Amino acid sequence: MKRRKANRTELEELKSEVLAFAQDREWLQFHSPKNLSMAIAVESAELMQLFLWCESHDSRALPEDAAAKARIEEELADVFIFALQIANVSEIDLPAAIRRKLEINSTKYPVEKCRGRSVKYSEL
Amino acid sequence: MKRRKANRTELEELKSEVLAFAQDREWLQFHSPKNLSMAIAVESAELMQLFLWCESHDSRALPEDAAAKARIEEELADVFIFALQIANVSEIDLPAAIRRKLEINSTKYPVEKCRGRSVKYSEL
Amino acid sequence: MKRRKANRTELEELKSEVLAFAQDREWLQFHSPKNLSMAIAVESAELMQLFLWCESHDSRALPEDAAAKARIEEELADVFIFALQIANVSEIDLPAAIRRKLEINSTKYPVEKCRGRSVKYSEL
Amino acid sequence: MKRRKANRTELEELKSEVLAFAQDREWLQFHSPKNLSMAIAVESAELMQLFLWCESHDSRALPEDAAAKARIEEELADVFIFALQIANVSEIDLPAAIRRKLEINSTKYPVEKCRGRSVKYSEL
Repeated sequence: MKRRKANRTELEELKSEVLAFAQDREWLQFHSPKNLSMAIAVESAELMQLFLWCESHDSRALPEDAAAKARIEEELADVFIFALQIANVSEIDLPAAIRRKLEINSTKYPVEKCRGRSVKYSEL
Repeated sequence: MKRRKANRTELEELKSEVLAFAQDREWLQFHSPKNLSMAIAVESAELMQLFLWCESHDSRALPEDAAAKARIEEELADVFIFALQIANVSEIDLPAAIRRKLEINSTKYPVEKCRGRSVKYSEL
Repeated sequence: MKRRKANRTELEELKSEVLAFAQDREWLQFHSPKNLSMAIAVESAELMQLFLWCESHDSRALPEDAAAKARIEEELADVFIFALQIANVSEIDLPAAIRRKLEINSTKYPVEKCRGRSVKYSEL
Repeated sequence: MKRRKANRTELEELKSEVLAFAQDREWLQFHSPKNLSMAIAVESAELMQLFLWCESHDSRALPEDAAAKARIEEELADVFIFALQIANVSEIDLPAAIRRKLEINSTKYPVEKCRGRSVKYSEL
């Protein structure tokens, strides 16, 4: 993991470390966008399983428990690892893509129309 | 979205923008860890749906098509947005969590044992 | 859909109708177990999305609303359709598999140990 | 599990056994539609994980291996168990819902337009 370079941004650096992990194991042959999208879904289900039977409200207190927080961190990290890797193999500029989607969402969910409301934009 | 500060890292900046988006709409009341974990799973399924019926190999060419790449970027961005938001509400240090998980995975999947093999670590 | 036979059980009949639907469209070429497992996950996420931002308690009242119930039925039916189809292509005897799993679960979750508790069996 | 009655259909019988399992453990308090939809998604991800890194084509041979088939059966049974339970708590008539959805799908995917094609209906 000693491949950090000063001139890279933080996300480029993390993407590079995730890519190196797969390259070292010759795993790129398995890392098609299709398979990586499945891996993200599998890891997100493992994250979700931590909150499966608790109430939504009670889940807010879970990260205050050190052991629970460690498990949340691990499962969330797995989601990020495969999400970073699909960005690698699909050559996606993540900060640009995330900010573009936030702009789209701003249009779909105008502040004045959805303040305090959780309805889907098509029903606004 | 004009809240960027020079002294923040890129991920802290993105987390802050995602948080502001929810705060502006008074949505934090819905953003429990439980609900956000569901949202990540829903968005990851929408990403996966893009690759549902294509062959794994053929999915590698999809990002070369501009329209397909735009849809992949949008769905992947949604995964990141909710993943950043669960890091916000759970106060998770993402680069630290991701690097800690890569270390754990290095131990579970030693290079010499799993080079070119996709088996699960418990079967190595 | 006029292929029902009197001597089949209800599940065999439904499996047969789902299979015919795919055969009529020459879709079996896409219906590998891998792809069908993805389809089940995609449809289950669409079902989950109906309950995304509501409280667990409030979701109990949703099926009392006719429009909401119709959407739940549609999404749940999609889960069943792909689940029946993976049973078709994998030649799985569903009632036997379901009852075998209920037996396994009975051993993992003995009534006296988990009455009223939602913890995972490994923590009992 | 000795609660079968002769005059029930197979699916009603299975629904009844799944319901009794939860009632015996006083688990209905956790079985809101929201939580059950999450459970279906979690179990479908566990099923999908069995096919994660294999090629779509190779997944067709997996059920021929007895050990692999047993695992597929277990994970698929878990999907069915929670899907039957959400039908229980939402009072859904499953055969009717499944057949209604097959009719809807017949209209969305006319045989002559989608024979041998996997595209989504909105693109037909």
